[in-house]
Amino acid sequence: MLAPVLLCVGGSAARAASGPPAEVVAAQLRDAAMAGHDIAYSWVSELTTHFGPRPAGSASEQQAAAWVAARLKALGFENVHIESFPITAWVRGTESAQLIAPSTQPLVIAALGGSPPTPAAGLEGDVVIFPTLRDLKAAVPGSLNGKIAMVAQRTVRAQDGAGYTAAVPGRTDGPTEAAQRGAIAYLLRSVGTDNHRQAHTGTARYVDGRVAVPAFALSAPDADQIERIAALGQTVRVRLFSGASYVRDAHSQNVIAEVRGRERPQEVVLLGAHLDSWDQGTGAIDDGTGTAIVTAAAKLIRDLPHRPRRTVRVVLFGSEEVAQPTPPGHTFGGHSYAVNHQAELANHVLAGESDFGTDRVYSFALPRSAAESEFAKTLLRVITPIGVLASDRAAEDVGADVTPTVEAGVPGFALSQDGTTYFDIHHTPDDTLDKVDRAQLDQNVAAWAALAWLAADSDIDFRPRPASGGAAATPAKP
Amino acid sequence: MLAPVLLCVGGSAARAASGPPAEVVAAQLRDAAMAGHDIAYSWVSELTTHFGPRPAGSASEQQAAAWVAARLKALGFENVHIESFPITAWVRGTESAQLIAPSTQPLVIAALGGSPPTPAAGLEGDVVIFPTLRDLKAAVPGSLNGKIAMVAQRTVRAQDGAGYTAAVPGRTDGPTEAAQRGAIAYLLRSVGTDNHRQAHTGTARYVDGRVAVPAFALSAPDADQIERIAALGQTVRVRLFSGASYVRDAHSQNVIAEVRGRERPQEVVLLGAHLDSWDQGTGAIDDGTGTAIVTAAAKLIRDLPHRPRRTVRVVLFGSEEVAQPTPPGHTFGGHSYAVNHQAELANHVLAGESDFGTDRVYSFALPRSAAESEFAKTLLRVITPIGVLASDRAAEDVGADVTPTVEAGVPGFALSQDGTTYFDIHHTPDDTLDKVDRAQLDQNVAAWAALAWLAADSDIDFRPRPASGGAAATPAKP
Repeated sequence: MLAPVLLCVGGSAARAASGPPAEVVAAQLRDAAMAGHDIAYSWVSELTTHFGPRPAGSASEQQAAAWVAARLKALGFENVHIESFPITAWVRGTESAQLIAPSTQPLVIAALGGSPPTPAAGLEGDVVIFPTLRDLKAAVPGSLNGKIAMVAQRTVRAQDGAGYTAAVPGRTDGPTEAAQRGAIAYLLRSVGTDNHRQAHTGTARYVDGRVAVPAFALSAPDADQIERIAALGQTVRVRLFSGASYVRDAHSQNVIAEVRGRERPQEVVLLGAHLDSWDQGTGAIDDGTGTAIVTAAAKLIRDLPHRPRRTVRVVLFGSEEVAQPTPPGHTFGGHSYAVNHQAELANHVLAGESDFGTDRVYSFALPRSAAESEFAKTLLRVITPIGVLASDRAAEDVGADVTPTVEAGVPGFALSQDGTTYFDIHHTPDDTLDKVDRAQLDQNVAAWAALAWLAADSDIDFRPRPASGGAAATPAKP
Repeated sequence: MLAPVLLCVGGSAARAASGPPAEVVAAQLRDAAMAGHDIAYSWVSELTTHFGPRPAGSASEQQAAAWVAARLKALGFENVHIESFPITAWVRGTESAQLIAPSTQPLVIAALGGSPPTPAAGLEGDVVIFPTLRDLKAAVPGSLNGKIAMVAQRTVRAQDGAGYTAAVPGRTDGPTEAAQRGAIAYLLRSVGTDNHRQAHTGTARYVDGRVAVPAFALSAPDADQIERIAALGQTVRVRLFSGASYVRDAHSQNVIAEVRGRERPQEVVLLGAHLDSWDQGTGAIDDGTGTAIVTAAAKLIRDLPHRPRRTVRVVLFGSEEVAQPTPPGHTFGGHSYAVNHQAELANHVLAGESDFGTDRVYSFALPRSAAESEFAKTLLRVITPIGVLASDRAAEDVGADVTPTVEAGVPGFALSQDGTTYFDIHHTPDDTLDKVDRAQLDQNVAAWAALAWLAADSDIDFRPRPASGGAAATPAKP
């Protein structure tokens, strides 16, 4: 329960039918979270401690979903249920890599998600290094016959993750491009900004239901080592082994819970995050903290003395990590949700997703129609004191899980987190609870609770206005 | 060749029989190193790139020693030779660990050096956690029958490595103490200050020629996870596997090279470091940089237009990492050297060792007899400008490799490096070239070259003075 302090504020927040003004309540939610009066840290601690890694389709993911559903009920959420969907699960096996010429040295690698196993005896080949994916694409078909192709592109550290966006096609598209030129396997300098001896896994594009050739990420120091040896004019030969496998009849699931609205319960503000994780770490920052942030924000709203006018729905998606990089064929939790709830989507007011680690929110972005609205001004007043700016762009890519929902016409919002160090840890064994900073987590909860409350307690329509208004057609500011 | 700049300096440096005053030359050596005119970085880059890890007794260690000897000859050193000695080598095998109750989760571990293999099917046991080694020692014999003992002590971050010294008995003595109380295996929170998903290996004490039970270091996040689960009141059960093995007829070797003195070539200033490394990283900071620092310092002296009066001897030791924590039985490079050169030790003027990573030297310590000497004052004048203080203590523990030499009566010196971050990386897969900072490395070379030159070009006797002088009996300052 929040302290019943009423702050005197100016401005023109949408007035709730009962209780104090919405802006006052939003500020109370913010302050409660900033003071640590939220469940976010205990949530991510319990989730990662009880279940460890939660790969899509695994027993661990399923057990975590059942535990989460029980927790959500115990926390007082309504309409808590699990929606299952079939997937082909990918299971990492034993894997290893060694330099075998010009000297014998162990290499730290991780198979890319979806990557097929090597032959049981492993495979060997000389390594052909390409500085970027573009260089690999310039190689002619047949030129890599019997070789192992390697893309050595570095990931630039950037607050908004632009370095990841620039480098990740090397992971998603590299295996196919290498196979098309005759390569027997693919190596990638990890898409990551650290220099630790850990490889960043991640999914690669399927062709005919599987990744084209065995594909592995190298840790940054191992990629450095191969490049240094090659720079001496020596041929680098590598042995690779992966015992990865596929489980065709697996399933994953979304967990759904609500704080039902008091006036228009059919209108939904969707707060998303994903419950599955990669298998090397325990999915603490990807995306345990996301599930903690949105759940804790909704729980603060749940515990108010009065409900919001609309429904706040938490959706904890399954099988996000193995979603395919391009539609169609992205049979994952976000797709399953959009299909299952197709009839409801016209009543989805707004959708957003927390999936960028645990560092602070520094910016918010709303649908273009709301960029200059009173709603935006109110939100800015509430969350500027905790270090959040209004973006000069409308919300665009708001996250993989809600993309199918947004593509179906639901307006999306973004609370952008500082990603400067996120890609040090992303998709590595290092994604563990000790990397979670409680104060940062609380700031996220504060921003999410404030935004979710203000949207749910308003009657604003975030959808594009009719053409006469023209706003929807206005390009985003540069 | 150094630039022939003569600096005007005051003070009373020992005067060389030819060339400029010794202090002037020491300053020139310092400045040359600080300007990067030394071979240290290329040395450690080539060593770690060509050979990767160099475990004691391995082909890689032997190949590295042969390469090093050839390089030393090519660099113009004299009396370059290799001195082999027999060892029983320990070889890490495949290894793995999993939580198997209350849930199934992978654990990141590394067998401790010398640790015996598990049975081929692995072993399982419930984990009994002790906060410190002292708590384990308080357990009664038989109380751990069939259990896996775990010591969870944390390593305190400290500039001088005091946190390591406090925690490392958990590694060296823990397996024996656990076995004496009936434990079937031993787990240790890594002796390290990082929170990465990497385990810090290191040697454990032998009893009857081997470590008592299979013993493993856990990464810090994995130790956290086990402690959190246990704190929920749940029994933690673990499965362990190690395929480690011993090679009884292996050998290791010391590589020796000299800059012969012009007046008293039989008098030796010994600069040591170790060429072997642990097997998980490439031994860049432990101790590739040590070998680089002492070799580069000696090479700067080698390239002077005039030799020092005494001989500067570089000894790159083998098999340091597997040296046993207590004598006797420490058949390693340092022991082999002291035995082989016993007849010469009376003419060893001074001995020191670089084996604490690559961070800056911040303090020097000399034998007690020289603490207030003109030599110490000269040295201070030369290296204070690069950030080095005079210690308020006499040199004591100057390093594992030279300990047998120092115990045989040779005066020791220390150039103490800042170890604040050393134990983030020490004995882990992360010990790779990218962790080496060139500017820090050059500062080390500067300090080593200045000290080695001043000692070798002097006629100071660092041995304790006769009792009448009394200095040798004076306790070190607190």
